[in-house]
Amino acid sequence: MHAATYVGNGTITVGETEPAAPPLAGHVQIEVAFTGICGTDLHILHGAMDGRVTLPAVIGHEMSGRIAAIGPGVEGWAVGDPVGVMPLDWCGTCPACTAGHQHICQNLDFIGIDSPGSLQTRWNVPEKVLVRLPESLRLDHAALLEPVAVAVHDVRRAALRRGEKAVVIGGGPIGLLIAVVARHRGVQVVIAELDAARRATAAGLGFEVLDPAAVDQAAWVEEWTAGAGADAVFEVSGSAAAVLGAASLARVRGRLVIVAIHPQPRPVDLKQIFWRELTVLGARVYERQDFETAVTLLDSGEIPANRLITGQVPLADVADAFRQLSEGKAMKVLVDCGGEN
Amino acid sequence: MHAATYVGNGTITVGETEPAAPPLAGHVQIEVAFTGICGTDLHILHGAMDGRVTLPAVIGHEMSGRIAAIGPGVEGWAVGDPVGVMPLDWCGTCPACTAGHQHICQNLDFIGIDSPGSLQTRWNVPEKVLVRLPESLRLDHAALLEPVAVAVHDVRRAALRRGEKAVVIGGGPIGLLIAVVARHRGVQVVIAELDAARRATAAGLGFEVLDPAAVDQAAWVEEWTAGAGADAVFEVSGSAAAVLGAASLARVRGRLVIVAIHPQPRPVDLKQIFWRELTVLGARVYERQDFETAVTLLDSGEIPANRLITGQVPLADVADAFRQLSEGKAMKVLVDCGGEN
Repeated sequence: MHAATYVGNGTITVGETEPAAPPLAGHVQIEVAFTGICGTDLHILHGAMDGRVTLPAVIGHEMSGRIAAIGPGVEGWAVGDPVGVMPLDWCGTCPACTAGHQHICQNLDFIGIDSPGSLQTRWNVPEKVLVRLPESLRLDHAALLEPVAVAVHDVRRAALRRGEKAVVIGGGPIGLLIAVVARHRGVQVVIAELDAARRATAAGLGFEVLDPAAVDQAAWVEEWTAGAGADAVFEVSGSAAAVLGAASLARVRGRLVIVAIHPQPRPVDLKQIFWRELTVLGARVYERQDFETAVTLLDSGEIPANRLITGQVPLADVADAFRQLSEGKAMKVLVDCGGEN
Repeated sequence: MHAATYVGNGTITVGETEPAAPPLAGHVQIEVAFTGICGTDLHILHGAMDGRVTLPAVIGHEMSGRIAAIGPGVEGWAVGDPVGVMPLDWCGTCPACTAGHQHICQNLDFIGIDSPGSLQTRWNVPEKVLVRLPESLRLDHAALLEPVAVAVHDVRRAALRRGEKAVVIGGGPIGLLIAVVARHRGVQVVIAELDAARRATAAGLGFEVLDPAAVDQAAWVEEWTAGAGADAVFEVSGSAAAVLGAASLARVRGRLVIVAIHPQPRPVDLKQIFWRELTVLGARVYERQDFETAVTLLDSGEIPANRLITGQVPLADVADAFRQLSEGKAMKVLVDCGGEN
């Protein structure tokens, strides 16, 4: 079999490895079809997560494939079944788990970061992380399952209702998916994005777009909402300026959802949060129901997968996928891991 | 009649004024018994709100008194009835009002800041702001009604449940009242406060106290909560350092309530908010139900009014009340406005 391995120093290599061991009890082996590369993978390659990742590391957590082998004690699955993976393995005993928040377990193993991921031809995973896919769903599109689940979770955290208005700050893959999921729920969405090409992609998907460098966003949103402010604002950009301005876009009792990772503390307009009694919500990963919704949205064609997938490379060229992302021109690049599609 | 008037330049004067006009239709005239001085009044005196207050200004909004005269069209009230006031007058037509959030109306008239307040012997107010007091409640204690309603509102925003654990950062009057209200709901509370005298007051009320300058609060809370973190954290201090550290005190899916006013944007640990899926809630003023709860808590003796009221001065000495507050030694100082108690 073959695997792509992050070896440190900004380097990912591809090579032949030992055949995968047969799956242990409670595990299955997946023949990986596609793995999408996301911003977190890029952070890993750039060394920003070297304190967390154990080298050498097979990364990758956005994937699709088919079951290739079944370990002892696994029932209800058959070789050849198309699957995705919810890449979370929780301890079950920490305070977060016992309170029912396993998805943000205090000892969470994020598979593909903290343990080996899907950038390989065969991948052994615990049965509990499997997500069943319909045969009608193309496996390249199914590789978007994980980021779609992120977006579903974010929209669910915001408790958006039909007829509400939302601002999405940041028009990358997650921002666009949040916009798509919110629109599917009957929410009007505007996307604020500095990059002209990304604005064009968003506009091509039918969204209203704003250039924060050219437009007074607060004034625009106030007019758009007849003086009320937006019901929800999603901070997906990671930018300090976006965070500082976000509170002024929300209505009284509106919601501000923190989706982006901000490694450094950011100045926040707490006075506005107080004044309008805003709710700020952290939104991280997903729960099982978010994956179920994501499968439905992908299978129904609601997610514009062809527009979001801007490139595809064979596993041997995985470094090229990272290069495309680094250059900021790609939206989502898939790595064909060789499994039968 | 007499009134205390903020005339700018850090100066409040007391003098004889024209007798109050008879109350207009829908209004009543109150003979003011007591007015408590709060941090906002002190900000006004220090000129920090000169852009909002119209000079000369009769301020004051924490009060108790008795109805002295009744305007046309007012029913259900009698001269002599003991009353407090919920000092909010909303427009009824802005997006916040029409959405049911009148208490944070986008055009809110905060009576005692935006329009004349209770630091006078007679005060005309709209009937709708009246809060009925039981005869069993002492009027000096009843002057705490408004800050108690603030605390009730803050605790309600945090959705605290019996058995939960909360950290209150800041042991001034509002912090202590939040702690008292939360404890009354069966919540375990620790108060973090830099000032030794305020810590002693809090300890005297039976609360666990922390000195943030001497104790690693995050470590303390982690041990206190068996590794989970606090269910809710109330930021009542107004301090930048407190804001920065607050997120690290909360459990997964915990709540961080912003009670203090932070005029400047503050660095906030958004990564922790994301990581633990925290909810940050702005909490401002109160709603009618908070006053009803506050009356019950005061009348039952649940609020340690005698411990919180650390001084009382006649209206003629109102400047002395502000001086006591400025020096940071007082907790709550009441001004006796001359009405029959």
